[in-house]
Amino acid sequence: MQIQLDRTTRTPLYRQLAQQLRRRILSGELPPGTRLPPERRLAAMLGVNRSTVVSAYRELAAEGLISGHVGRGTVVIDHRRPAAPEWPAGGVPWPQLFAPLASLLYDPALEDAALASSRSDVISFATGLPAPELYPISVVRQLLDEALHREGPRLLQYCPSEGYPPLREAIAAWSQRWGIRCSPDQVLVVSGSQQGLYLIARALLEPGDLVAVEAPTYVGALQVFRAVGARLLPVPVDDYGMRVSVLEQALEHRRPKLIYTLPTFQNPSGATLSLDRRQRLLELAARAGIPVIEDDPYRELWYEAPPASPLAALDDAGVVISLTTVSKILFPGFRIGWVIAPWPVIHQLTLVKQLVDLDTNPLMQWAVWAFIERGLLLPHLETLRAAYRERRDVLVAALRAELGTALRFRVPGGGLYFWCELAEGVRARDLLPEAAQRGVAFTPGESFFPDPTVGRAFLRLNFTYPAPATLVEGVRRLAAALRALQTAHAVRERASAPIV
Amino acid sequence: MQIQLDRTTRTPLYRQLAQQLRRRILSGELPPGTRLPPERRLAAMLGVNRSTVVSAYRELAAEGLISGHVGRGTVVIDHRRPAAPEWPAGGVPWPQLFAPLASLLYDPALEDAALASSRSDVISFATGLPAPELYPISVVRQLLDEALHREGPRLLQYCPSEGYPPLREAIAAWSQRWGIRCSPDQVLVVSGSQQGLYLIARALLEPGDLVAVEAPTYVGALQVFRAVGARLLPVPVDDYGMRVSVLEQALEHRRPKLIYTLPTFQNPSGATLSLDRRQRLLELAARAGIPVIEDDPYRELWYEAPPASPLAALDDAGVVISLTTVSKILFPGFRIGWVIAPWPVIHQLTLVKQLVDLDTNPLMQWAVWAFIERGLLLPHLETLRAAYRERRDVLVAALRAELGTALRFRVPGGGLYFWCELAEGVRARDLLPEAAQRGVAFTPGESFFPDPTVGRAFLRLNFTYPAPATLVEGVRRLAAALRALQTAHAVRERASAPIV
Repeated sequence: MQIQLDRTTRTPLYRQLAQQLRRRILSGELPPGTRLPPERRLAAMLGVNRSTVVSAYRELAAEGLISGHVGRGTVVIDHRRPAAPEWPAGGVPWPQLFAPLASLLYDPALEDAALASSRSDVISFATGLPAPELYPISVVRQLLDEALHREGPRLLQYCPSEGYPPLREAIAAWSQRWGIRCSPDQVLVVSGSQQGLYLIARALLEPGDLVAVEAPTYVGALQVFRAVGARLLPVPVDDYGMRVSVLEQALEHRRPKLIYTLPTFQNPSGATLSLDRRQRLLELAARAGIPVIEDDPYRELWYEAPPASPLAALDDAGVVISLTTVSKILFPGFRIGWVIAPWPVIHQLTLVKQLVDLDTNPLMQWAVWAFIERGLLLPHLETLRAAYRERRDVLVAALRAELGTALRFRVPGGGLYFWCELAEGVRARDLLPEAAQRGVAFTPGESFFPDPTVGRAFLRLNFTYPAPATLVEGVRRLAAALRALQTAHAVRERASAPIV
Repeated sequence: MQIQLDRTTRTPLYRQLAQQLRRRILSGELPPGTRLPPERRLAAMLGVNRSTVVSAYRELAAEGLISGHVGRGTVVIDHRRPAAPEWPAGGVPWPQLFAPLASLLYDPALEDAALASSRSDVISFATGLPAPELYPISVVRQLLDEALHREGPRLLQYCPSEGYPPLREAIAAWSQRWGIRCSPDQVLVVSGSQQGLYLIARALLEPGDLVAVEAPTYVGALQVFRAVGARLLPVPVDDYGMRVSVLEQALEHRRPKLIYTLPTFQNPSGATLSLDRRQRLLELAARAGIPVIEDDPYRELWYEAPPASPLAALDDAGVVISLTTVSKILFPGFRIGWVIAPWPVIHQLTLVKQLVDLDTNPLMQWAVWAFIERGLLLPHLETLRAAYRERRDVLVAALRAELGTALRFRVPGGGLYFWCELAEGVRARDLLPEAAQRGVAFTPGESFFPDPTVGRAFLRLNFTYPAPATLVEGVRRLAAALRALQTAHAVRERASAPIV
């Protein structure tokens, strides 16, 4: 949930807040039963007086949209009646027609993270973005201009659903650097790897199917699997990635339809699957005939040594569907990713893609082709590795200096994230309002687990988006927030201590 | 099915043909039971000797992939065994895992049209493309360069899933020209209107739901509805668009979940729904509480007078979900379209979009914003209208001169297509190989009907993509093809006439 308060208009802040909450409730974004943040906490996160939140909640309660109960907090009421306010009566009872997607995808911890990032003066560790100051804008300008000059209308027409043929060839060649042997017709260009994930889920999963996922894992994957009605089989992750032996035991009794893994610089844990586990995983999958989805957006972003070979390179049995994107190594805005898989899979995914959006933007495909073919991508990766290595080291030093033993983490060898565990059973979501109040945001770890109750002590910090000096200031604010939380805890514990 | 034969390599043509057919069979693109074109016909379409096709079919039959029977023709055999050739044994039995999408979406008439367009010297009436020579390439070059210069990294980041906020505002204002009153938060930017259609189907339909569609209607819509498991309720179209009175009668017994219509310069029929039918349709929908999907890509392309108000402008009850795209008025390659709907719908579609591809390319959104806001789109529309009016008139004159009464059609007042009916019970698919042999292609009409057996006499001709002189030559070739077909018919009829 992101709330934008405009302090320059004459509309009072409580009105603006009520209005934005009302829309979210009526549209189903905040489904019935959702617990709204306590008044004091929401006020802290938005940087407003508590009375602003109290007034807004009072207005919504008067409209019958929320109700407050001592002990239960403020809760959204079921308002799904044929004619809800703000759209014409006598038409379509819209909310009754929708699939229950809103409640399925609603994640209070992520809503909190977005809320904490609402203020413009916040330092955000909560993104998954490359450093914007490293974007080679002038190169992109030249490439797009050349593309339109040379290719003209061809890049503004429809494009084959499988992708722009020269890009499919370039991707096949580029992947050989990592030992992946594939022909261009085993490559499907997609509009970002989220789309690849969706196409795979649609082509291979039916409601009730079981999917083995790492715990923790990428939130967007959990959402897609939940949305198609799959059940989740969590497999824990340690310092060497997915615990394949745990999966092996599970396979004795249960039969997942897919195994989903981020084997390299995993999001969120940063862990990389060891080579022997990779081989074991592929053996298991081939023996059981279960496809392995290798989601691999971070492979190129290593800061010590190149990681182990991709599963797609080690796969002799044709069980791996591999997913990559340029969002982390060039720009998210290109919306270009790709799937590499046995070609019957590529054909099936193409059928789904034709339904979903016909084809991927050919001009953007040309630009990615040019980045690869003209040798522009490799030096850009060198630049990113150097810059991100520096930021990572700055964050390590700052976290150790400011937080000491209060936050445990492993230094990631690549990727975009630190995965941190709070000491002494502090819940990351409790830290978030204190952090927001001090102008810093992060992602609570519980959203990354199939069962969110497991991950309460964890939080994820991105280190590639903020500049080095900002990272340091952000850690200072985070440390102050943690101290404040611990003081509050201590006060409460003293207060509740038995009188002796 | 498109077959690309390369006459410059040393690989014999029959080998190339066998190879391409084999891949399509093994990948499920040509599912078991598919009837392959008769040898003579395929040879004519590809411009090769009949012996080439015979050799290719013999090779595939020897591999157990197809079989020929007198009377039944050549048919694809069910080859779905765990280890099909050409991918490693012992891995995943891929074809067994897929949903039955391939057979669901396989359309022999469309395959024939693609096959007929395979040769590079073919004049194609079978596209749905704007005239490439009218693309304002230099404007696009300037705009993209300015966008990156001015906005830089912001247009290369992720973008809100609902769309780039200035574009949502510009679309709301632009739509007011047609009397559509909506706020920016009732606008969802999508990656082409095919995506809009998919999001709507996913958000509102479940397997077994009934959808009222026009007969004929847009093929891509039929595919999406079939893919989500919907059943179809066909409503016939006449000169004034959908026969709303037929729908009204059907509603007495049946309850569709959605009504899907292309009310303006319909694809494929060119018909436009009259104003009183529009009002009647909205009344029916509001009374029954059934959403109306207004798919409206051709509204701006009128050649006589502007068409009746969009349903979205006439809708007082909030029942209309309206879909538009820039694919026909600017470029398909931008991959930009939009949905206008009551905002609970927009919110629900946004949730699905987040799963499908997160967001739409922000740089392309900026370019469309600039085309609208800087007044560049309106004069471009004037240019298109003048050019397409001329092409339409050229095609009318050529069809009348060359084909006379052999082809009946109405002159479309807008849009991209002529919808033609062959006289004397000639089937359009039978005309296609004769046409392909003479270097001209079109789209057989049967694909546009929920029940394809109804539309055999129809064919669709696009008149915006070929230049005027090409249109005339294309019609000459079409006339020659029809004469050849009729001669063959006559010979056959004489041969089979009883001896008296």
